[in-house]
Amino acid sequence: MIIVMKKDATQNEIQTVVNRLEAIDCEAHVSVGRFRTVIGAVGDRNQILQLPLEALAGVERAVPVMRSYKLVSREFHESGTVIEVRGVRIGDGSFTSVAGPCAVESRDVLFETAEAVRAAGATVLRGDAFKPRTSPFSFQGLKEKGLILLAEAREEFDMPFVAEVLDPRDVDLVADYADILRIGTRNMSNFALLTEVGRTKTPVMLKRGFTATLEEWLNAAEYIYKEGNQEIILVERGIRTFETASRNTLDITAVPLLKEMSHLPVLVDPSHASGKRHLVAPLARAGLAVGADGLMVDVHPAPDTALVDGAQAILPDEFAELMRSIEVMARALGIPL
Amino acid sequence: MIIVMKKDATQNEIQTVVNRLEAIDCEAHVSVGRFRTVIGAVGDRNQILQLPLEALAGVERAVPVMRSYKLVSREFHESGTVIEVRGVRIGDGSFTSVAGPCAVESRDVLFETAEAVRAAGATVLRGDAFKPRTSPFSFQGLKEKGLILLAEAREEFDMPFVAEVLDPRDVDLVADYADILRIGTRNMSNFALLTEVGRTKTPVMLKRGFTATLEEWLNAAEYIYKEGNQEIILVERGIRTFETASRNTLDITAVPLLKEMSHLPVLVDPSHASGKRHLVAPLARAGLAVGADGLMVDVHPAPDTALVDGAQAILPDEFAELMRSIEVMARALGIPL
Amino acid sequence: MIIVMKKDATQNEIQTVVNRLEAIDCEAHVSVGRFRTVIGAVGDRNQILQLPLEALAGVERAVPVMRSYKLVSREFHESGTVIEVRGVRIGDGSFTSVAGPCAVESRDVLFETAEAVRAAGATVLRGDAFKPRTSPFSFQGLKEKGLILLAEAREEFDMPFVAEVLDPRDVDLVADYADILRIGTRNMSNFALLTEVGRTKTPVMLKRGFTATLEEWLNAAEYIYKEGNQEIILVERGIRTFETASRNTLDITAVPLLKEMSHLPVLVDPSHASGKRHLVAPLARAGLAVGADGLMVDVHPAPDTALVDGAQAILPDEFAELMRSIEVMARALGIPL
Amino acid sequence: MIIVMKKDATQNEIQTVVNRLEAIDCEAHVSVGRFRTVIGAVGDRNQILQLPLEALAGVERAVPVMRSYKLVSREFHESGTVIEVRGVRIGDGSFTSVAGPCAVESRDVLFETAEAVRAAGATVLRGDAFKPRTSPFSFQGLKEKGLILLAEAREEFDMPFVAEVLDPRDVDLVADYADILRIGTRNMSNFALLTEVGRTKTPVMLKRGFTATLEEWLNAAEYIYKEGNQEIILVERGIRTFETASRNTLDITAVPLLKEMSHLPVLVDPSHASGKRHLVAPLARAGLAVGADGLMVDVHPAPDTALVDGAQAILPDEFAELMRSIEVMARALGIPL
Repeated sequence: MIIVMKKDATQNEIQTVVNRLEAIDCEAHVSVGRFRTVIGAVGDRNQILQLPLEALAGVERAVPVMRSYKLVSREFHESGTVIEVRGVRIGDGSFTSVAGPCAVESRDVLFETAEAVRAAGATVLRGDAFKPRTSPFSFQGLKEKGLILLAEAREEFDMPFVAEVLDPRDVDLVADYADILRIGTRNMSNFALLTEVGRTKTPVMLKRGFTATLEEWLNAAEYIYKEGNQEIILVERGIRTFETASRNTLDITAVPLLKEMSHLPVLVDPSHASGKRHLVAPLARAGLAVGADGLMVDVHPAPDTALVDGAQAILPDEFAELMRSIEVMARALGIPL
Repeated sequence: MIIVMKKDATQNEIQTVVNRLEAIDCEAHVSVGRFRTVIGAVGDRNQILQLPLEALAGVERAVPVMRSYKLVSREFHESGTVIEVRGVRIGDGSFTSVAGPCAVESRDVLFETAEAVRAAGATVLRGDAFKPRTSPFSFQGLKEKGLILLAEAREEFDMPFVAEVLDPRDVDLVADYADILRIGTRNMSNFALLTEVGRTKTPVMLKRGFTATLEEWLNAAEYIYKEGNQEIILVERGIRTFETASRNTLDITAVPLLKEMSHLPVLVDPSHASGKRHLVAPLARAGLAVGADGLMVDVHPAPDTALVDGAQAILPDEFAELMRSIEVMARALGIPL
Repeated sequence: MIIVMKKDATQNEIQTVVNRLEAIDCEAHVSVGRFRTVIGAVGDRNQILQLPLEALAGVERAVPVMRSYKLVSREFHESGTVIEVRGVRIGDGSFTSVAGPCAVESRDVLFETAEAVRAAGATVLRGDAFKPRTSPFSFQGLKEKGLILLAEAREEFDMPFVAEVLDPRDVDLVADYADILRIGTRNMSNFALLTEVGRTKTPVMLKRGFTATLEEWLNAAEYIYKEGNQEIILVERGIRTFETASRNTLDITAVPLLKEMSHLPVLVDPSHASGKRHLVAPLARAGLAVGADGLMVDVHPAPDTALVDGAQAILPDEFAELMRSIEVMARALGIPL
Repeated sequence: MIIVMKKDATQNEIQTVVNRLEAIDCEAHVSVGRFRTVIGAVGDRNQILQLPLEALAGVERAVPVMRSYKLVSREFHESGTVIEVRGVRIGDGSFTSVAGPCAVESRDVLFETAEAVRAAGATVLRGDAFKPRTSPFSFQGLKEKGLILLAEAREEFDMPFVAEVLDPRDVDLVADYADILRIGTRNMSNFALLTEVGRTKTPVMLKRGFTATLEEWLNAAEYIYKEGNQEIILVERGIRTFETASRNTLDITAVPLLKEMSHLPVLVDPSHASGKRHLVAPLARAGLAVGADGLMVDVHPAPDTALVDGAQAILPDEFAELMRSIEVMARALGIPL
């Protein structure tokens, strides 16, 4: 932390800052310049962050220099985390494709989709049994019945599945069925839920809050990690900006940045980012181009009858075509699928 | 909902849209123009919103015309909702001041603050026993012990109190003590929590998600209302923008807009919006000037030792001075306190 | 400037940074901590900002500590700038009302409006002869003919006027007529135009770019000031955010922040911020409540026939009513009009 | 345009809207629903946009349905525009690489860079002689001297060059030398400058305003096109969002959207978007993956001595490596370079 004192800060005010830092066992480096005094605080970052430095007399600004997350940082753990579920490895340098319907609606739709995405090259199935909906009157998911169907599809098509969990009270239930739990964008800062999934032994996909900075996102991952669950996959799914031509703006720059900042694997979700079917394939290819560890795509055999987010789901045929281009690009770039 | 067809949409595609609308018992008004056909859909908005209209062939855009919330809308309930807790009325045309420490840290600090804000004219006490923190290593609140202290302060100073609830599993506990439950900005879209507080009989303060549109916010209120709890107070607390000179940007325009859109009372929270002590008083006065039903302010007798958000808490003396200017302005504008 | 070195920065890399700073005659304070080395650079801020510090080997981040503007800062000039045009003083602690039609359309509309706003208490007339329009096919203003009408209205109603200038080649022309030049939101970073108005002796209203930070805005003012024109009035007119319920979000927090950061007077423009007639009065009052030096409002006798921005113009009667409430509030707060 | 009337709009108010539309020779389709009346207006969009519909009594909202730009739209001109400068074709399905220093600083640096990027596969040279700088004290470019150097480099290395123009008064000068004029991000809405470059016969690169929507950007292009200059190249260079880990957020989704909306070619500029050297290569590859017509990259032989934006310039060697990966990917995707 760098503490910039006001131009007219007194010697006493400077000393008070130093004392407060030393009281929590930090080093305080005082630099007296021509215009201002600047104090560099070195020590346990979480302790420093708890000091109300900007409330102290004579302080103009306190600028954090070190990041507030630690366990999920690349500094803490140099080599990338690799997560293995039923033989599928995520984060090992290969490119993993997760696909399936947004929500589980019926056995038929789920099975038809799972069969098609498996044939096209997807290795993990997606499908939700609990859906967070902006309006309380929208379809909220099949709940346990949906999880049972997903588990059947897993056996039938031999692919692990990921499903969203919304409520800390449902974590055990979802974890009983799913191979990977997913925390959705609206729950990224639901600390009660993060803590609860952190107590399971099931890998977690943590979607970025659509208005979260990378630092806030990694702090959310830290909540999970701290409880003992180290198998976390980050999913970039677009952020809210002033542009309304697409639903959200896929922040592709986040992928190489996260790769530097953290050891966790990173997927991109072009379906929820764009909200539009015809944008899914180019954005998916962009994800591969920037070094993501995989992608997650909504696929539905009849998007215009889908109960949730039909406008963004691609057809099984479109998914197969996307996978062919992914394969060609991945081969050219030397990335295994 | 207005459905704009593509320039080259076929008669068949137009008919399909009409059929889908009529299947859910909507009227479809087809308007054939020189360049495009436009279909106006009139009927149950929640049903229409579930149709994946943009996924239908020939559809260029579907533009919602009516708002997606209903129960909390001014159209549904013309006169403003008035909420009464222990004799304090919020939303009746008066201006209510809620004040207290951000978090409950100790009996002494809480009581000292409560006494001071009561004397200065605040009628509701704030103080949290559960704190959501970006970092898992920060102070998380005194939990039930904090609620007990708040209940004691209520008796001592004869003022109802509001406290945050973070986890659906804690709703009953917090409601056992608090006069008003508060949903924080990070939980505005935590639908499990909204549903749970909706099932209590305790009034709820719903803070705006710092990245939520007014429409999303009112939909969140709808979740609570739909469960049977109609006593909801909206709290504007600033939104995330590109500007970083203050923590968030207080969206003062939201107040008169909400007054048109909804029948619920609206407070402003200048403390969390600005994050800076010296901005609290002018922003509080702006809240009064735009027609808010009250304000909520963090007050702390020693902000530089506060465990949470010290940089934004004002001193008891500063609060008393703020209240004097609020009183003068309110009298001039004919608003009772 | 604080330069944070990478964890593994070498002694050589640190020395290179120090050498680069000393080469431009800066002091470099090296602080060696347990985890990282931090270098505090003290000296001429504009010279330091030109060093590509983040491109040097071993540097993790360079964090500016001092502001990049100087001449317009409160530090440079403690007492507030007061601007006087034809007897009207802006920035002297009083509250100035600027009002008139958005664009000059005809002699009749202009004169009718000017007479009404003068009678209601406005002391400066607004009206534009050159209009920047998003679409090239929209009405672009009456040009010199409009300026002539404004000059006539000035004589008739004895009030100075402000008019927008869009093109560096028109600065002399507009300055020949207008008492105050205005730089619009889209031109805030048009450095050629800023430089040109800086060379005149006519006061300048500089509107905030709707996506500009306060620091960028003050740097734009610095361009004008540096050329010798020190009479600059800042106008907050709303910023672009994710919220679309109003056209822009009036950043009321900017007013007290600017008052600290700079010595220039600050007005608020609730008309262009909100884009909606019924929001103008509450936002204008909020401007007074947060300490602005005045307001600027679009008034039109028949908004539904206005050629530009009719949806936001208020009627002369509504303006008179607004002025009455401003008067009552100002008196209560001890602010002269 | 869809005009949504208020719930309680009178028959008279509805008729007034219809009359206003018919007065400008528009069709008005009135749709009376159970809750509201909706009017569809069909006719000349620019005329309709000038009506202050939201200011008419009884009108709740006016929702534009058709886009406000026309000449640059894909509807107006189905096949993509191809621009040819000195034998280099942009927009013909190939992928064009533009590279060079951000600013022209000296003959040596310019020639060294030009030679290197030419050898690596770039076909257009970039380098600016006029620089817009946030601070008036920063280096502002070599002006005509810089243009002369660029013209010499063009002959020496046989590649056309693009240079920025900032001031309408400099357009003729820059056009005398440059093969392509560039309008920078801060000038995207400088309508005087757009009009002036529209009057030349030199192709124009129009960078996206970092806070402009796609629709605003295409309207800016319309300004140029309307004056007679149809050779316009759009350059996506990142938008301002809440995320500060990179300078701006490259909006990769804009590329496929623009390809649908407009017939103009689209490049991406990963250097100015990210502001960080090590992000340039992945973002450049993402541009190719989403279907851009090319890229523009800052290259400098000694970034740490660059006078402008050194932190984002890549070394000639890094550029050569980037071009090798671009070549491999382009070949795999069947895109000629």
